[in-house]
Amino acid sequence: MRIETLFTPSEITEPAVRDKTVAVIDVLRACSTIAFAMSRGCERIVPVASVEAAMNLASSLEKKVTLLGGEREGKRIDGFDLGNSPLEYTTEVVKGKAVVLATTNGTKAITMSQGAREILVASFVNMASVVERASALEGGPLTVVCAGEVGRFALEDAVCAGMLIERLGEKTAVELNDGAHAARCLYRQNKDSIPELLKECEHGRYLDSLGFAKDLDICSRVDSLSILPVVKEGRIVKPKRAKRK
Amino acid sequence: MRIETLFTPSEITEPAVRDKTVAVIDVLRACSTIAFAMSRGCERIVPVASVEAAMNLASSLEKKVTLLGGEREGKRIDGFDLGNSPLEYTTEVVKGKAVVLATTNGTKAITMSQGAREILVASFVNMASVVERASALEGGPLTVVCAGEVGRFALEDAVCAGMLIERLGEKTAVELNDGAHAARCLYRQNKDSIPELLKECEHGRYLDSLGFAKDLDICSRVDSLSILPVVKEGRIVKPKRAKRK
Repeated sequence: MRIETLFTPSEITEPAVRDKTVAVIDVLRACSTIAFAMSRGCERIVPVASVEAAMNLASSLEKKVTLLGGEREGKRIDGFDLGNSPLEYTTEVVKGKAVVLATTNGTKAITMSQGAREILVASFVNMASVVERASALEGGPLTVVCAGEVGRFALEDAVCAGMLIERLGEKTAVELNDGAHAARCLYRQNKDSIPELLKECEHGRYLDSLGFAKDLDICSRVDSLSILPVVKEGRIVKPKRAKRK
Repeated sequence: MRIETLFTPSEITEPAVRDKTVAVIDVLRACSTIAFAMSRGCERIVPVASVEAAMNLASSLEKKVTLLGGEREGKRIDGFDLGNSPLEYTTEVVKGKAVVLATTNGTKAITMSQGAREILVASFVNMASVVERASALEGGPLTVVCAGEVGRFALEDAVCAGMLIERLGEKTAVELNDGAHAARCLYRQNKDSIPELLKECEHGRYLDSLGFAKDLDICSRVDSLSILPVVKEGRIVKPKRAKRK
């Protein structure tokens, strides 16, 4: 199984995603938050790349069932219903609703991966579900896109990519590009200290300074959610529901 | 000492380089080749970002003392005097000459780092000289720019960045961004097998397939050259010569 890992969305090229399965990783916090929202009954999430796109889209959707979520510099956007903390996405708030989500890195990476055959939304919390789906590819190539932090390498995303690669390597022979090789190496060095990693990495320290220490703890809980959000036609849904329709 | 490491030129932002010391790393092969050329008496090297820029510049310079060097896809550019192999840059060929150099990654990363207070041209072969200069910064910030491979993460550049960070950390307290932390970790994992790394990384395998196996060996010789090419006003010179003028 050929696995490519890209550490920032700027490394995305059309051949890297076209007709491939892509796993997008943004540990802090978009992909973790999406997993939480879907596990609490959120109907669908529409990832958008900008605040303007979120406002425009939301104005065309039914207000009763649509929420606006997202952040800039880690903070809830003025006028939005929700920020980007998994703790905000409770059952009471999101069950049966659609969320239009605009985050700096994660939803941007997802929109830049359009053209893929399938996009899996991945983080530590739903890793087992991502591994299960990816290992069913039967050798088909996998591209792992790390969202990074404002166009830069983010350590927590690289280590999470490495966990995915390590687990796939336990099931099948893997052929790695330089990025995937490095990610696996970084995972092996950090695998016994994921909660500490999230506290010590640059973006974790920044979120802590904003008062989001609890988010770091929640996002570090490996395999805590049995859910696999996938992107279908620009919208994030649960794969089973998508099949039932 | 604050050290930031960027794994691709796309991570460069103006604040990351402005008025800072920047070390640009392209192990395979531009920065290694520049070190070889300067150590063999090349007078100066003008790094340019494109073949067109190289042609235009060379046409305005005196032909007797100016050579055109560079590659696309690892191969010498049609009509150029030299490719990008250190073996081509012999004393007979380059002594007393100026070289206009256009490579896919290294010279592009150098030109994108303009705005820095000083740019150091770094690779395994001249690491000791780079460490000596960087440690004289007395705590001033250092940005390490990896050239990468066509906009992607390149393992050999990351490991070389990690060597620079590790050696500086032995001399002074260092404060690292996520990229620098990852680079040091990757160096520690690969430090006893640099020659093997250059053979096994993606670009090393590609260069081997083109017949450049000897280049991989030469570029892996840590501290083999006592030379520090620096970029002054867009031209690469030896620091001592620049001072004497």
